[in-house]
Amino acid sequence: MSDLRATAIAHPNIAFIKYWGNRDDDLRIPANGSLSMNLAGLETRTTVEFDADLKRDELTVNAAPANEAARLRASALLDRVRRQVGMAAWARITSANNFPTGSGIASSASAFAALALAASRAASLELGELQLSILARTGSGSACRSIPAGFVEWRPGDSHETSFAESIALPAHWDLVDLVAVVSRTHKHTGSASGHRLAGTSPLQAARLEDAPRRLAACRAALLARDFEAFAAVVELDSHLMHAVMMTSSPALLYWQPATLAVMQAIAALRSGGLPACTTIDAGPNVHVLTLANHRQAVQSALESIPGVQDILICPPGGPARLA
Amino acid sequence: MSDLRATAIAHPNIAFIKYWGNRDDDLRIPANGSLSMNLAGLETRTTVEFDADLKRDELTVNAAPANEAARLRASALLDRVRRQVGMAAWARITSANNFPTGSGIASSASAFAALALAASRAASLELGELQLSILARTGSGSACRSIPAGFVEWRPGDSHETSFAESIALPAHWDLVDLVAVVSRTHKHTGSASGHRLAGTSPLQAARLEDAPRRLAACRAALLARDFEAFAAVVELDSHLMHAVMMTSSPALLYWQPATLAVMQAIAALRSGGLPACTTIDAGPNVHVLTLANHRQAVQSALESIPGVQDILICPPGGPARLA
Repeated sequence: MSDLRATAIAHPNIAFIKYWGNRDDDLRIPANGSLSMNLAGLETRTTVEFDADLKRDELTVNAAPANEAARLRASALLDRVRRQVGMAAWARITSANNFPTGSGIASSASAFAALALAASRAASLELGELQLSILARTGSGSACRSIPAGFVEWRPGDSHETSFAESIALPAHWDLVDLVAVVSRTHKHTGSASGHRLAGTSPLQAARLEDAPRRLAACRAALLARDFEAFAAVVELDSHLMHAVMMTSSPALLYWQPATLAVMQAIAALRSGGLPACTTIDAGPNVHVLTLANHRQAVQSALESIPGVQDILICPPGGPARLA
Repeated sequence: MSDLRATAIAHPNIAFIKYWGNRDDDLRIPANGSLSMNLAGLETRTTVEFDADLKRDELTVNAAPANEAARLRASALLDRVRRQVGMAAWARITSANNFPTGSGIASSASAFAALALAASRAASLELGELQLSILARTGSGSACRSIPAGFVEWRPGDSHETSFAESIALPAHWDLVDLVAVVSRTHKHTGSASGHRLAGTSPLQAARLEDAPRRLAACRAALLARDFEAFAAVVELDSHLMHAVMMTSSPALLYWQPATLAVMQAIAALRSGGLPACTTIDAGPNVHVLTLANHRQAVQSALESIPGVQDILICPPGGPARLA
């Protein structure tokens, strides 16, 4: 690898305690702390190559030129790197996901985590995990959680320097598995970044935030104790609270589709029958079904029988962002 | 009609500003004021006949003996009537709906409105509309709104005597029509009465209530001005707020089914395209689609093409509870 080129790989993550709404929209300082798990098997692979001959940053995503908004967003992260090392060259960025983009599987998280690592290394900037997490956060808030390994907590902080994510348990801590029931592959109408700006228009956001530290503590405790029942209760509540805020924003954001409800109802029925399984949903229609590894097959069979479930992605806890 | 026998008819109602949660569960003094429209075409017809030979009150609903909980609930309303007139006889109650029971079409509202009117008249108790509304409320909160005509507001009050509903506009005021998209005819798991007791377990109920007077005023103003756009915005927000509280209660109440979402999404798309239509959902999976009479056919055609919509009930504004 030359000094001006690096390739990094990062996983998306699924939030158990959600991030929705910022204290500072530009810096992406979140209104509440959040907690997530990296998703092994799903990844973004990104190469950054600085090249003095380029006239501007170039961005290719999944083998096609990215739109201008995406290019400028990536370019802004590179500007932070260039400023730190005093570099002037533009870069060629090539990024690819092995999972559907823009449908609630947090592709921006893995994308900006991989970009932060690849760009800093290509510029010969050696950042520690904490600094990498801060850099990734400036591109997409939840990207800060895709830098550390396994189960990750984002300390919200109150400034650029104090808002970053840390691992609270490594992947081997708990044999949790996320079965992502894909019910749509179309790009969502309202992306997360603009959605966050709407959170404050809901009459429910303040109440959601007020109770957030309690939920975060309950989720962290359940996770560390490997207590699935307590974990499921707080994870489903937290997901419903975020969607409650979304659907009562102005304009309303209703990310759920009919098959989303079919999966939620089916899993609720399974849990009533004693199976350890629960659901959580990000800003999109797909449903993340969480269970324990030794119940994976039963949950998978149930999901396969639900009309509208197009695909099932199976993700154990994933490692940190890393160089290729 | 003999002195000891009377038959009354009442319509169910659809709430535009919802009732969810009580200040006093036993008396059904609501935590917030609400606003509704009676549904013409749908009705409960109830006959009450006091008979000195009976050993207890008897209740037949839709030609079958009612369960004991329903019988005792009806009996409690009759006790209030008996106490007022000093009567000792038990009664034979025969009630029938011309619409599906227990699936979010507020059958308890029309049932207790018809029962209040039939029971008081059979006991030769002449109650004014306000007193009838109070009596009906003791059986089922929203039943108080099925006593007056047309568009009705429930003044929440803070005591038994001050909590009743009044008409704010007669049926002819606005050519609104409610197309009830029936997606399920099965009885819901958690009835409204026990659901109301869960409202306080949601971290969102206080915020919902705090904003309720603003929504009530906005809805009343839009209704009186026949401003569909303003009406639709506040009606959908209020429905989402109630379901937000329901789905974040402990235990969570998720009344929506896949076809519920299909209708919500389809109507949202129609409104984006300029058609005056919006949705509101009570404690069940069926979707009430509100539009103006001259757009009814377009909305009906759209609903007929949605998989999972089993039936469409078409309801203009309805009159008051009345004797048969």
